[in-house]
Amino acid sequence: MTAEMTRPELGVCYYPEQWPEAQWADDARRMRELGLDWVRVGEFAWSMIEPAPGRFEWDWLDRAIDVLGAAGLKVIMSTPTAAPPRWLVDKHPEILPVGPDGNVRKFGSRRHYCFSSPVFRGEAARIAEAVAERYGTHEHVAAWQIDNEYGDHDTIHSYSPAARDAFRDWLARRYGDIGALNTAWGTSFWSMRYDDFAQIELPNQMVEEPTPTQLTDFLRFSSDQVQSFNRMQAEILRKHAPGRAITHNFMNQNEDFDHHAVGADLDVASWDAYPLGNLVHGRLPEADKQRLLRHGDPDQPGFNHDLYRGVGNGRMWVMEQQPGPVNWADANPAPADGMVRLWTWLAHAHGCEMVSYFRWRQAPFAQEQFHTGLLLPDSTPDRAFAEIEEVVAEAAALPALPPRAPSEVALVLDYPSRWALSALPQGRNFRAGHHALDWYSALRRLGIDVDIVGQHTELNGYRLVVAPDLVMADAGFIKRIAASDTKAIFGPRSGSRTEAMHVTAPLPGAGLAPLIELRVTRVESLPDWHSESFLMGNASHAARRWRETIESDAEVLATFEGAYREGTPALVGNDRARYLATLPGDEGLRHVLEDTLRWAGVDTLPDLGPDLRLTRRGNVTFAFNFGCEPAAAPAPPEATFHLGAARIPPAGVAAWSET
Amino acid sequence: MTAEMTRPELGVCYYPEQWPEAQWADDARRMRELGLDWVRVGEFAWSMIEPAPGRFEWDWLDRAIDVLGAAGLKVIMSTPTAAPPRWLVDKHPEILPVGPDGNVRKFGSRRHYCFSSPVFRGEAARIAEAVAERYGTHEHVAAWQIDNEYGDHDTIHSYSPAARDAFRDWLARRYGDIGALNTAWGTSFWSMRYDDFAQIELPNQMVEEPTPTQLTDFLRFSSDQVQSFNRMQAEILRKHAPGRAITHNFMNQNEDFDHHAVGADLDVASWDAYPLGNLVHGRLPEADKQRLLRHGDPDQPGFNHDLYRGVGNGRMWVMEQQPGPVNWADANPAPADGMVRLWTWLAHAHGCEMVSYFRWRQAPFAQEQFHTGLLLPDSTPDRAFAEIEEVVAEAAALPALPPRAPSEVALVLDYPSRWALSALPQGRNFRAGHHALDWYSALRRLGIDVDIVGQHTELNGYRLVVAPDLVMADAGFIKRIAASDTKAIFGPRSGSRTEAMHVTAPLPGAGLAPLIELRVTRVESLPDWHSESFLMGNASHAARRWRETIESDAEVLATFEGAYREGTPALVGNDRARYLATLPGDEGLRHVLEDTLRWAGVDTLPDLGPDLRLTRRGNVTFAFNFGCEPAAAPAPPEATFHLGAARIPPAGVAAWSET
Amino acid sequence: MTAEMTRPELGVCYYPEQWPEAQWADDARRMRELGLDWVRVGEFAWSMIEPAPGRFEWDWLDRAIDVLGAAGLKVIMSTPTAAPPRWLVDKHPEILPVGPDGNVRKFGSRRHYCFSSPVFRGEAARIAEAVAERYGTHEHVAAWQIDNEYGDHDTIHSYSPAARDAFRDWLARRYGDIGALNTAWGTSFWSMRYDDFAQIELPNQMVEEPTPTQLTDFLRFSSDQVQSFNRMQAEILRKHAPGRAITHNFMNQNEDFDHHAVGADLDVASWDAYPLGNLVHGRLPEADKQRLLRHGDPDQPGFNHDLYRGVGNGRMWVMEQQPGPVNWADANPAPADGMVRLWTWLAHAHGCEMVSYFRWRQAPFAQEQFHTGLLLPDSTPDRAFAEIEEVVAEAAALPALPPRAPSEVALVLDYPSRWALSALPQGRNFRAGHHALDWYSALRRLGIDVDIVGQHTELNGYRLVVAPDLVMADAGFIKRIAASDTKAIFGPRSGSRTEAMHVTAPLPGAGLAPLIELRVTRVESLPDWHSESFLMGNASHAARRWRETIESDAEVLATFEGAYREGTPALVGNDRARYLATLPGDEGLRHVLEDTLRWAGVDTLPDLGPDLRLTRRGNVTFAFNFGCEPAAAPAPPEATFHLGAARIPPAGVAAWSET
Ligand SMILES: [Zn+2]
Ligand SMILES: [Zn+2]
Ligand SMILES: [Zn+2]
Repeated sequence: MTAEMTRPELGVCYYPEQWPEAQWADDARRMRELGLDWVRVGEFAWSMIEPAPGRFEWDWLDRAIDVLGAAGLKVIMSTPTAAPPRWLVDKHPEILPVGPDGNVRKFGSRRHYCFSSPVFRGEAARIAEAVAERYGTHEHVAAWQIDNEYGDHDTIHSYSPAARDAFRDWLARRYGDIGALNTAWGTSFWSMRYDDFAQIELPNQMVEEPTPTQLTDFLRFSSDQVQSFNRMQAEILRKHAPGRAITHNFMNQNEDFDHHAVGADLDVASWDAYPLGNLVHGRLPEADKQRLLRHGDPDQPGFNHDLYRGVGNGRMWVMEQQPGPVNWADANPAPADGMVRLWTWLAHAHGCEMVSYFRWRQAPFAQEQFHTGLLLPDSTPDRAFAEIEEVVAEAAALPALPPRAPSEVALVLDYPSRWALSALPQGRNFRAGHHALDWYSALRRLGIDVDIVGQHTELNGYRLVVAPDLVMADAGFIKRIAASDTKAIFGPRSGSRTEAMHVTAPLPGAGLAPLIELRVTRVESLPDWHSESFLMGNASHAARRWRETIESDAEVLATFEGAYREGTPALVGNDRARYLATLPGDEGLRHVLEDTLRWAGVDTLPDLGPDLRLTRRGNVTFAFNFGCEPAAAPAPPEATFHLGAARIPPAGVAAWSET
Repeated sequence: MTAEMTRPELGVCYYPEQWPEAQWADDARRMRELGLDWVRVGEFAWSMIEPAPGRFEWDWLDRAIDVLGAAGLKVIMSTPTAAPPRWLVDKHPEILPVGPDGNVRKFGSRRHYCFSSPVFRGEAARIAEAVAERYGTHEHVAAWQIDNEYGDHDTIHSYSPAARDAFRDWLARRYGDIGALNTAWGTSFWSMRYDDFAQIELPNQMVEEPTPTQLTDFLRFSSDQVQSFNRMQAEILRKHAPGRAITHNFMNQNEDFDHHAVGADLDVASWDAYPLGNLVHGRLPEADKQRLLRHGDPDQPGFNHDLYRGVGNGRMWVMEQQPGPVNWADANPAPADGMVRLWTWLAHAHGCEMVSYFRWRQAPFAQEQFHTGLLLPDSTPDRAFAEIEEVVAEAAALPALPPRAPSEVALVLDYPSRWALSALPQGRNFRAGHHALDWYSALRRLGIDVDIVGQHTELNGYRLVVAPDLVMADAGFIKRIAASDTKAIFGPRSGSRTEAMHVTAPLPGAGLAPLIELRVTRVESLPDWHSESFLMGNASHAARRWRETIESDAEVLATFEGAYREGTPALVGNDRARYLATLPGDEGLRHVLEDTLRWAGVDTLPDLGPDLRLTRRGNVTFAFNFGCEPAAAPAPPEATFHLGAARIPPAGVAAWSET
Repeated sequence: MTAEMTRPELGVCYYPEQWPEAQWADDARRMRELGLDWVRVGEFAWSMIEPAPGRFEWDWLDRAIDVLGAAGLKVIMSTPTAAPPRWLVDKHPEILPVGPDGNVRKFGSRRHYCFSSPVFRGEAARIAEAVAERYGTHEHVAAWQIDNEYGDHDTIHSYSPAARDAFRDWLARRYGDIGALNTAWGTSFWSMRYDDFAQIELPNQMVEEPTPTQLTDFLRFSSDQVQSFNRMQAEILRKHAPGRAITHNFMNQNEDFDHHAVGADLDVASWDAYPLGNLVHGRLPEADKQRLLRHGDPDQPGFNHDLYRGVGNGRMWVMEQQPGPVNWADANPAPADGMVRLWTWLAHAHGCEMVSYFRWRQAPFAQEQFHTGLLLPDSTPDRAFAEIEEVVAEAAALPALPPRAPSEVALVLDYPSRWALSALPQGRNFRAGHHALDWYSALRRLGIDVDIVGQHTELNGYRLVVAPDLVMADAGFIKRIAASDTKAIFGPRSGSRTEAMHVTAPLPGAGLAPLIELRVTRVESLPDWHSESFLMGNASHAARRWRETIESDAEVLATFEGAYREGTPALVGNDRARYLATLPGDEGLRHVLEDTLRWAGVDTLPDLGPDLRLTRRGNVTFAFNFGCEPAAAPAPPEATFHLGAARIPPAGVAAWSET
């Protein structure tokens, strides 16, 4: 095996500016003794670095980096653009973002900038350049993070004058002349015709919804603004910090910008993993949430590992790993003891190169004082500390593993398709992010490893592409599948809209030609209090929220039951692709996907149940028990266990090689 | 029988500006071949007609009307005021409406005008006059629609400076001097005294609710603005389009303006019928909604037919009939196959002269791309097409029928009373529109045909007036009932407020004198999680949401049960009128109304159950099965069936004459 | 016994300006005949007193007071600052408050002023002085009310320019220099550093939450503004109305300002008692709300009597007692017949000196026309009238009673701690007001009388201090407990934050040293759909919403059960204090408190059940049956009954002395 072999690396987020300098050295020593390799600093330090316009105070940060580096830690330095100083807001109040209610959002927390403000772009470039010049080639600075959590606090969509002007320019570039915009937006519909790009306004505070093309264009524009803002900083860092890995810490669940597009300008994608808050706000029924309250959705972290591994072109870090209770969810339970260890090994198994915990010490002041860390506010170890010690000890015994091999199955997450669904949901309960996680979960219960990809990914090697919601199927992507040996299955609404957010001609589903011929002649969104069913083989399964009437030359593999249009196809397929015309419940989705995997030549395991998950890295199989009861590792009798044993306790991990 | 005999006429809504001109002729031919008589055009065409201030482009519309007319279709032309062009907004931004949050609502959809803007009134008159001059006497233009769906997207109540100024003028006219306003508004209450009409502001963004008289006045004023705006256009049309029927397409469920008052300036009332969205957002318990998901509330369309037949002084059209799934509800299921036929016959049976479907072809672009039509976007027929073919064939076999005869029972819907309830609901769950539909439903389950009327209707012939919520009983109306042979039953809160929105003296209920003597000494609003009961005969029934303690000389016909004030009257009556002091559930309401109908000399049928509905036109009885199981038509053995047979399938229709 | 003995006094709220002068004398006569002693007037009369700037019209009010006084009534005069006239708003629009949405709140109801407006403060002083000069020594004016219901309609927190300026000044005074503010607010956290107080903005419309210290400071500032506004008026009244009792009518449930601080400037605290609306919006599970719909939460009025008795330093009135249905709750049921009598005796038993009913006659106009009074709008008696007659007759037979003796148990309600919880709730379902009422209720079911106190209260005599949510434990208070014989029990989160809203060092709980040594090493907020349990003795009890992991030298008295950290302490205690690490359900809370009362040497009764409550004044024990079934009075066989008998009917009262 030629691939580079790695051991799990660990890190932590640290804010020297928040602690007395006298404490730094001891902190650094304890980090290193714990076994940490990395420390992230600086992402909110602008006002400490530049306390007044043009007056820089580098000394404290120089010393902090020296102390950390001297202790043996590699520093991830950040550009501090997520938190512009008060003096900058005073000087240029027009950098502030404007909410959908038309009100300027005030200084006093973070992310108080509009991506479209040319003034802010200039200031961001200036501070990024200053920091990059200072530390770009510093011996202890081994990587760079740009800004922090794009999209947090709903900050991608700004309705400021700057955003309006930039949107007009973006439209002028996209459409060239106003007639093309009128055609695309369908302004003949309600007398909405424009004579000039200067007449166009942002799509907030309207009498009724704007055209979905206007809305989709605004969502695209807003994503492009993030992409270009990030690229500007990436270019500055490449110039001043050669050879250092550049990353951004993405927020999972945020769909307001194209993570693949931003990832293309990075060396590594990192993401911030907070499984318990995601459970509380997440997709699962209440009974599952109760059972998993302190364990989290078994598929949410894996989904994001697989997503950001793709966003980072194979290189992925967790920049912020939840170490205990957090402060921001509707309810903030604690992880069961053992879960921090489980999440760390899960990340490693999914190909993560480095797991960094947020944060070193719980802050006794400011907004996040209920957010735990590795240390309590009094510097004594909190629970996660001991679990990391355990991970470090175990890591020494585990063989080094190669980068994660490509999976046989690729699941498509296409951000423009999500924007299309957001612009025209058609049903109040249609939540594409939840549905895609349901599909992922069904695959994972069958023991399948999954890559999560965009439409521009190379297909080589995938046996099956799974596209739960590919509304805006890219013609090139469909053609590449058709020209390959890869098979595909599409969820409802796939291939139903053009790039201009029009219905595909002749009918929805046409976007999937030439893979599969399909005419969607009717769609229905269904309320949560109603359920339909479909028949596949002898099994009847629930169909919820969405149902289509389709016509197709392809074979009918499952049919709807009940009084309404009984016998119309629920699942059709030819030898290249399948199309599912509804959203099944868990059981039905597993049935459909199990049959589809078999058809695509992908081996499955018997259902692992709701709480056990397997994944493979190199020749090691990892098993994770998210449940409350012990589980049996599906390992062969002759397996060599590197972690745990055949009986996996709740919140437990096992890892074995087959000999 | 001397009355004019009619057959069902059919039509469709068409937007030539949205399709290539090459397609028009074929569309027109297919409309005619399908059997359609009417086509509505132009209601959103302002910017196509007048692309720049004063520059008119009539040619395309001339040609479109010619093509449609040449094919044999009668054109309903519209004034395009519902969608002012962008250039008008640029020139006069003050025409935009202002929301209750104080923000100007932006251009980009439709209805972006304030009814009170004098500038917009001038522009609306100008464009209406231009269109009327051009097509007023056009041979193919047989009718006119003014504007489109007043009240859609919450646009009746605007909080603009223009609205404020107009409100002050309206108040000055209403009250003459400020002292009269102070008295009416009760400004002695919280030191709210005004010295001048110029001090008065619109009732949004206050610290606490304004006086209910201020609020009621604002609601009245807003309704008057719609009425005068509509009248202005009606007068223009009468001048330029003599002999053509003038209509407006009302939105059912909207209570923000007085539909009777606007109807008085029209020749025909038309309304837009979307039963499934109304079910999803409607009054029924969830179990009923589940059963009726694809059939709709059995009483919602009939209620509106009966309402708008009255609003149109006997002449009523359906301008937009749902042909399949729509795009705007929280969930958008499809009608069961057969429902479009059922709704069409239902309209005819309720006296509708013409049913026009919205829309000819589903648009593949803009806001309503999920709204179905008679054709799919690729011009192939959608399901409704076949059902209309069926209706056309059946209509040929059905005898022509006279206009609908007056019913024996009139239900009162008084818009000012609804505003009074909106200004002072007194309970969060008090939804008068739902309650009135419950009363209507109870009557309809007993086989009763109903007219829905305002307080200015002539009473001649009605055996019973049913007034579920006549808060502001008009003294003239009550006197006319008292002077007639008509009996009446009133729901709780009836006769409880004066026109100044004061409690009637001496006590609530006094507004019903001289019909019935009544003193309401206490009212209670009750939460949904609590239920009371009353005893009528031997039957105990639920009483919900509202309960009154009343004193009356009249006979006690039902009494409350339970620990609180057991034995106080729930229903009282003399030989002229009855008063119900609570809101019963379905069963109790049916008991009360069955007894009341018998008392009034109106014959009832045994309960038809929740899903079967009968109605009569001429000597033909129509039966509609809204349910999911076959139903038996209650026809005599010797009946001659014109439609269907004695066994009515789900979504089925039967019609018979007795020989 | 040397203490002053009192009989219940009664009063009513009256608005002469709302009724014809001809009616006044008859009203006054009937008040007196009913047995009323007091009448409150004038709190909304500003525009009637001063109809134009500087033009006063006293005559009508002179006559009204004379008429009332002549009839034998003592007048409570009010300063009319709760309702500034329209002309004042015209002259100085900047007095209007601004909502959190940034919009100015309009004239047209009441409380439309910003406490921080210097112009309004000047005007308020001017009108208060004018009224005080006119009536300060009037023979019939025996007491004064300042303003009306501070905090009604969310008016404590204004976001106006005046509030912003005053907040900056307040901060400058509090912190002296901006560096101290930066430290306290923790502005190193997200680069939020300030250079000048003039940079600080109000904490609305931010991107994300401000620092909790900024928020807490804003809440403190807003409370201080109320306190100084009230003190300004109190000083004016003391100058012009010597010897008259000064009061303000507090709104229970409002926590937006420090009621203890405002009370310190008053002679008597009064409060407005509306039990049924509080039930509808209150803490109880739905089944209890159903049972108690017309009786109210048995503990809500008692809690407030005990609270405001403390706020008034032992002197407490009810200024507005609900006499029947009200107009402002989500649902407005009627009190069961008998409840007005019950509430009146309840107030007396809890030490209330005077109960005044709101209002004399139901108004047939303006905002509160659904609010009942002692008379119906036609001047006939409503139900409460008869119940007051009954009270007056009973009062004659009851012995005069001394002021209420201090209880053995004091429950702490600390407003700054509530603000801390509001600034950092950490769980969406954490409602401290509800939890404290749960604790009070548990004590009351055990027959315990309770004083409700702030942290500055003297401890002399209390056997037990109960602090359900003392987040910001005052060091002096804790030391005084430690130095006394008083024992204490604290709920979760107690002693966890410093005055700067930082975590106490070394860990949460440190604020309770030196009483009890405690380290909270982890907190969890739990969703409503999840429940934990703890074991105390052999009993297992539910633990909800909040759970802490604690370490302490104290004895472990109860432990958590279940999979997560089984056996960790749920309740710990030493010989001075106890700490409860979760929020139990009713049963568990009663178990904990019963055990704690026994430990503190306080005698308890067997559980009185959910609906029966006892309290003592002098040597008389009162019992109140809030339930729907008769209850047995727990009186000894030889007791002498002053009211009722051993069998207490629903809504009934008993009172006895033991011989
Ligand atoms: Zn600037
Ligand atoms: Zn203008
Ligand atoms: Zn001023």
